[in-house]
Amino acid sequence: MQYHVNGFRPGDPDIKPAASDLDPEVARGHKLPRQVDVLIAGCGPAGLCLAAQLAGFPDVSTMIVEPKPGPLEKGQADGVNVRSMEMFQTFGFAERVKREAYWVNQTAFWTPDAAKSDHIRRAGIAQDVADDQSEMPHTIISQARIHQLFLDVMRKSPTRLEPHYRHRVVDVEIDTDSDDHPVTVMLERLDADGRAVGASSVRANYVVGCDGARSRVREAIGGRLHGDAAHQAWGVIDILATSDFPDLRRKCLIQSAREGNILIIPREGGYLFRMYVELDKLNPDERVSHRKLTSEHIIAAANRIMRPYTIVVKEVVWWSVYEIGHRLTDKFDDVPEAEITTRTPRVFTAGDACHTHSPKAGQGMNVSMGDTFNLGWKLAHVLSGRSDPGLLHSYSAERQEEARRLIETDHQWARVMSAPPGESELDGSDMPRFQTQFVANLEFTGGLAVHYLPSRLIAGAQHQQLATGQIIGKRFHSAPVLRLADAKSMHLGHVAEADGRWRLYAFAGEGDRGQPGGAIHALCASLQDDPSSPLKRFTPPAGDIDALFDLRAVFQQEFRSLEYEKMPVLLRPAKGRYGLRDFEKVFCVDHKLGADIFDMRGICRDTGCLIVVRPDQYVADILPLTAFSRLAAFFSGVFKPQ
Amino acid sequence: MQYHVNGFRPGDPDIKPAASDLDPEVARGHKLPRQVDVLIAGCGPAGLCLAAQLAGFPDVSTMIVEPKPGPLEKGQADGVNVRSMEMFQTFGFAERVKREAYWVNQTAFWTPDAAKSDHIRRAGIAQDVADDQSEMPHTIISQARIHQLFLDVMRKSPTRLEPHYRHRVVDVEIDTDSDDHPVTVMLERLDADGRAVGASSVRANYVVGCDGARSRVREAIGGRLHGDAAHQAWGVIDILATSDFPDLRRKCLIQSAREGNILIIPREGGYLFRMYVELDKLNPDERVSHRKLTSEHIIAAANRIMRPYTIVVKEVVWWSVYEIGHRLTDKFDDVPEAEITTRTPRVFTAGDACHTHSPKAGQGMNVSMGDTFNLGWKLAHVLSGRSDPGLLHSYSAERQEEARRLIETDHQWARVMSAPPGESELDGSDMPRFQTQFVANLEFTGGLAVHYLPSRLIAGAQHQQLATGQIIGKRFHSAPVLRLADAKSMHLGHVAEADGRWRLYAFAGEGDRGQPGGAIHALCASLQDDPSSPLKRFTPPAGDIDALFDLRAVFQQEFRSLEYEKMPVLLRPAKGRYGLRDFEKVFCVDHKLGADIFDMRGICRDTGCLIVVRPDQYVADILPLTAFSRLAAFFSGVFKPQ
Repeated sequence: MQYHVNGFRPGDPDIKPAASDLDPEVARGHKLPRQVDVLIAGCGPAGLCLAAQLAGFPDVSTMIVEPKPGPLEKGQADGVNVRSMEMFQTFGFAERVKREAYWVNQTAFWTPDAAKSDHIRRAGIAQDVADDQSEMPHTIISQARIHQLFLDVMRKSPTRLEPHYRHRVVDVEIDTDSDDHPVTVMLERLDADGRAVGASSVRANYVVGCDGARSRVREAIGGRLHGDAAHQAWGVIDILATSDFPDLRRKCLIQSAREGNILIIPREGGYLFRMYVELDKLNPDERVSHRKLTSEHIIAAANRIMRPYTIVVKEVVWWSVYEIGHRLTDKFDDVPEAEITTRTPRVFTAGDACHTHSPKAGQGMNVSMGDTFNLGWKLAHVLSGRSDPGLLHSYSAERQEEARRLIETDHQWARVMSAPPGESELDGSDMPRFQTQFVANLEFTGGLAVHYLPSRLIAGAQHQQLATGQIIGKRFHSAPVLRLADAKSMHLGHVAEADGRWRLYAFAGEGDRGQPGGAIHALCASLQDDPSSPLKRFTPPAGDIDALFDLRAVFQQEFRSLEYEKMPVLLRPAKGRYGLRDFEKVFCVDHKLGADIFDMRGICRDTGCLIVVRPDQYVADILPLTAFSRLAAFFSGVFKPQ
Repeated sequence: MQYHVNGFRPGDPDIKPAASDLDPEVARGHKLPRQVDVLIAGCGPAGLCLAAQLAGFPDVSTMIVEPKPGPLEKGQADGVNVRSMEMFQTFGFAERVKREAYWVNQTAFWTPDAAKSDHIRRAGIAQDVADDQSEMPHTIISQARIHQLFLDVMRKSPTRLEPHYRHRVVDVEIDTDSDDHPVTVMLERLDADGRAVGASSVRANYVVGCDGARSRVREAIGGRLHGDAAHQAWGVIDILATSDFPDLRRKCLIQSAREGNILIIPREGGYLFRMYVELDKLNPDERVSHRKLTSEHIIAAANRIMRPYTIVVKEVVWWSVYEIGHRLTDKFDDVPEAEITTRTPRVFTAGDACHTHSPKAGQGMNVSMGDTFNLGWKLAHVLSGRSDPGLLHSYSAERQEEARRLIETDHQWARVMSAPPGESELDGSDMPRFQTQFVANLEFTGGLAVHYLPSRLIAGAQHQQLATGQIIGKRFHSAPVLRLADAKSMHLGHVAEADGRWRLYAFAGEGDRGQPGGAIHALCASLQDDPSSPLKRFTPPAGDIDALFDLRAVFQQEFRSLEYEKMPVLLRPAKGRYGLRDFEKVFCVDHKLGADIFDMRGICRDTGCLIVVRPDQYVADILPLTAFSRLAAFFSGVFKPQ
């Protein structure tokens, strides 16, 4: 991580210099502002992920409101897939989560014992994260802890943002004739018991409803959740317990012959675990609350399903009973399909406010954070005046499609899980169907199947063959490199921060050492001097040369045969108020590892290539190092000339 | 990391449950206690490392006093060798340091240019940490930041310990006839300008002087620093600067023909760097302060030495001028050699209070922390009544010898650095002498040469051949393993925490799966049931079975061919108030890595072995799995029967 560029500052480097025009009473959530750029409804994963990102922009004013009196302490979601871990890396707390969390390495599958069908037996195990699928593990940690880590990022950001607790959005009105904070948000102030004790309003340029399945923001813009319910009650319970079941520290899918299914999720800290337990079938139109199911019901059902093993519960930390619903809104913003060409969005929904599904695939929190990680930088682009507001249409377009695929997969998974095991599964001649399906779903559940379609933010696949392991429209897949100036072995993808910047990874062709005459040198020259260069056209004049486009070069040689001091000036930029050199732009292969990044990611060794990566880590384009005009044209579609 | 064993607790898991009998005013440093178990003088690395360790024991009362009004903000030491990083791992903040710090990967050597002798040229580079020397990097980060991380550990510990700032130890008196807090410590209270404004006294069982080269504690026990000065002034300066020198992000040793030497240390954050610059020769008995040298002198000298390169300083963050002294006290405690058999120590010195040397080898902070990491668990053993006070003699015995070796090496290094380069070095036909010597010193400067001699805490080398890569008396050398219950790939050494516990690593022989009839099973049976078992004799009755001895087994098979549920009960212990199973005691090889821990550390595959590791990570003994009586005898020398 880089710091001190504008002068030495003692203490925790994660605490950023405070913005100069900060009203600390507003930032701390003690006073309501009259107006803000972005008002976020709801301190769940979607809301906090957005707030943490926007808090980093001193010129964007953000507020986030939450009806609860303070931060969540326990319960709710707990699965963090590898894609979310990669995102956490950009916020600076992936290492922290790695240290505290449970890591899902292997999943065990238990089926009815053919010899004694009211008993279960272990039928197989499967690796959870394929080798080199991500540099990150799949982790399990309380949603409450994730909230705290986002809140820490917010608190240490330039805007020192904290939530306005005990405030609920009750309505939203959009003045479509105005561009000056056209959204009026009606807020209720709540007492400690959640009763309304006052009302006020705030005007905003944009509003994001991360306020859950019963979202008032969604209702206000006329959004509706469509879908169906499975009429099946499930219980979820976090417990400390003793048991003779051997696999309590493995994720387990357990299918019994007649008593239903369990999903066991080991939890952080080495002792806690969670069970999702199949309970009663519900009648059509029956609500799960009618059954008056309790934690005792969940525990009793678990003990029936897990025979011959027993679980003796010592402490129930949290529990809930729910039914599965697969529901989705048509649009994740306030602009109806028919008006897309004439209006731009002002109000968005994210997370459970626009899609709900089974919690058992561990997707809810991940997809919700993915929603707002997609939206955050786009809002910042528009609010800073760099991009036109039409850019914001891409949020609903990209995320609604992903949510649709999620619900489809979740449907399919629910069908597999509820089907009784067949003969060949019971006698062990076939791998259990739920294991086969589980393995087939791994890329999806890891969050790595997200694939955005071509748009003004995702180029066509014309030059895809230059990097066959980096798919245009999917997330940039990191690999190890060596940083030239200090020979540090690291992951290339870890240069990305949640700072709204685009990354340009220039992979050098064979023999190119960055010298004049080579493609890297020529690219740098064009980026620096050509009038059509996006760096010249769109970088804010007062900012550093890498304020919007963070160019990094990767060479094929090992570090001893490259000379840092002879690299193009653009790869050794002078930054900050002192004009200090940034030494961290040039990389080479890490010769101590077997395969290098060129091999691992199918990057053309002959010519190299340029990989354009969005602020949310998705590959926007792959192009030849010489395709400067294509690059310029792409960014003309993203940014307005300054 | 493990938590929740005694019930779910929300929030940051590093915040430990508070001790029940805490006086928060004393813990916060607002009120002086009347008496304490341990009084530490000085909040430098030695004092804070000790305080952080002792703060973890709820039954040990500790206070730490510091004349300064608050925490250090900048300056002083900055090098953290790999051994200290391994120690930081036991305190839980190694990952944090890895993220923030500069990593020393390669060191560059610059010598006079043969063609133009008033210019320098790069003569070579050398890898700083040899492959597999440690799993940790050699890092550079401000001493102030290390202080903060120790202070965080203290604040989050059961005793919530914070320093008493603005208090200086002025004298210490020992009542050798008493065992009840026999040391009276006279304290001065200081105002913001460091003037004494009051006096008080505190009685302690033990006092540790970490109060620097002018230690009052050392003086009070009649200790004297012996040694010599090199009569050479040096300047040290932390700067933000621009320069055409290409190696500002490499550690550099620069030898000029006539202008002297520089050591460049890149610093955390990517921009800051430090220079140690050779200044004037001093006359015998002249103090460096007479020369009235300033930061301008340091910068001017640096620019002379680094010709043809120039450094343009933009911000001087911190600077100091000093002369090298190599000084050592004879004893690190208050018991003269002649009285060792009749008295046990009550007062200790650590760090600069008992040894001073050149800062340039980056040893000061590391050796100082090593001193008190050696002392902390011994104090805890004695104060809890588990060991007799004679154990404390081993502190001076072990650390004084190490300090003596350090000063010898430092002397030799100073001679090499100040010798003018010879002909064959200048013309490039030989590797520069300072490069040869630097490489030869790497194990030493990495902190890995520390080798304690046989004593009641270090066994003889009788069975050394059972693990040729783990040297009795040296630090336990970690290697990767897989944790069986959850298939987590991790470093075995990272199970160690700074908690005063002994680790027993049982490596299984070939074919041993932990079943009855095998050596692991037999060892577990003896440890659990034999009346002479150290676990039975010395583990406090109220504690968990692993409260004092943390037994872990490592098997040679890969995880799929081992059955966790069939392991001996001692490897699946029930713990805490609920009797929850601890699943983290059994490991196997990580089959995805080329070499496994048996190969990497020369562990006998045929018979396996037991490696006994002290609470400070030093190997106390290696013995056959069957040598139960040797094991029992060893611990009879460490502990008193309970």
